[in-house]
Amino acid sequence: MIVSPRNARIRLVRSLLSRPRKRRQTGAFLAEGVRLIEEALSADWPFRFVLYSNALSARGRELLERLKARGVEVEGVESRLLQSLSETETSQGILAVLDERPLPLPSSADFVLIPDSIRDPGNLGTLLRSAEAAGVQAVLIPPETSDPFAPKVLRAGMGAHFRLPIHILDWKEIRRRTLNLRVLLADMEGRPCWETNLRPPLALIVGGEAEGATPEAYRLATAFVSIPMAGKAESLNAAVAGSILLFEVLRQRSYS
Amino acid sequence: MIVSPRNARIRLVRSLLSRPRKRRQTGAFLAEGVRLIEEALSADWPFRFVLYSNALSARGRELLERLKARGVEVEGVESRLLQSLSETETSQGILAVLDERPLPLPSSADFVLIPDSIRDPGNLGTLLRSAEAAGVQAVLIPPETSDPFAPKVLRAGMGAHFRLPIHILDWKEIRRRTLNLRVLLADMEGRPCWETNLRPPLALIVGGEAEGATPEAYRLATAFVSIPMAGKAESLNAAVAGSILLFEVLRQRSYS
Repeated sequence: MIVSPRNARIRLVRSLLSRPRKRRQTGAFLAEGVRLIEEALSADWPFRFVLYSNALSARGRELLERLKARGVEVEGVESRLLQSLSETETSQGILAVLDERPLPLPSSADFVLIPDSIRDPGNLGTLLRSAEAAGVQAVLIPPETSDPFAPKVLRAGMGAHFRLPIHILDWKEIRRRTLNLRVLLADMEGRPCWETNLRPPLALIVGGEAEGATPEAYRLATAFVSIPMAGKAESLNAAVAGSILLFEVLRQRSYS
Repeated sequence: MIVSPRNARIRLVRSLLSRPRKRRQTGAFLAEGVRLIEEALSADWPFRFVLYSNALSARGRELLERLKARGVEVEGVESRLLQSLSETETSQGILAVLDERPLPLPSSADFVLIPDSIRDPGNLGTLLRSAEAAGVQAVLIPPETSDPFAPKVLRAGMGAHFRLPIHILDWKEIRRRTLNLRVLLADMEGRPCWETNLRPPLALIVGGEAEGATPEAYRLATAFVSIPMAGKAESLNAAVAGSILLFEVLRQRSYS
């Protein structure tokens, strides 16, 4: 059982918790909690190792057995030490280090999401969760957006990370990947989404709340689409706005 | 200038920060930050007093002048002391104590939201923001839902609190207030929202993510409505699900 905060695995976890650059260098990311690790396992995601403590629930212990049966290396950690690595107030006593090896981009993806300048990790994760639910086939993350593999994004994503190809790309590469798609940008001045043809093939760019989308996004977009509002609010939460548009795509696709 | 943490106003603010019961007793709540206080002022909301520090921006100082001109009592506070009362990492140097006096419920409200068992303050605030934007006329908060006037809910609400009647009621009273409405409950087993008549008059119940809606909500509902999904996700974020349905109401109302 690991008891020392200077243990190499503990140090790796600590650095993955806070530093996107470290994640990039090591090509690894963290998933915390029973539910998320169950999702990773059922998606056959490549594991590096799993740490657990005696705070683990019965469901968690069962998961641990399944991990071992799959050949994943698991190691016990003193309970308070593992808790000190948790981003949540009460750790569930399990944490996995996973390979950051995104699912391949389908060459013929016809429903693509580009979350642009979304800085809030909770919003980004929530948007990824909605994207997977709405049938998005690929997510292209430009440089201005938060690290999609940060722990808070994972948590809000509720497993979407293990089912969606999520690729961090520069704008040049994003342009190349969307050559055959109409690119729509969510913008208040755009045409009402209910009066716009949102049937795939299309890529949807959703900008952040604070600063909106980047100039690169505006250059790439071929049309603008808005969500009509009845109240006096100036805007919606970025994850909410993106989700409304993603499900409007699904609605239009389902009834035509 | 207030410098003592034992000052009566400072003590009041501190208790309003954390204790819903205290908010109920004193009939007051907090709004923090320039933007939110601007919204309260432009909605003519009743102020008790405003505290500010020299961390205030130019826009904040202008707001302060407008508050004074309206006869609102404003008082300076030592900068670090005010920061210690802030829920955010960098306080904007302004904070208001407001009367918890909800806007009157319109007797003929035909678009009503009932957020049921929503415990996460960020989700509740985001849902209120969407509700105002979608044209909801009244929000009825059952006992199982978080305090809608908690600071985090206010922050995520982005001013919706000052434009929407938000009333905390027991289920008996909620039933009385929805007698003339169809009551739809968001439920995975429900009829697809795109195939359901969502034109007002109606009340929409959105349950929490963890436990769903309460038995009282199921008894009150006259029909169930779902959001079809294309992916493998089991559910959406509660604020996202509620917002998609609220804007589907607006869509159907706009095109009929």
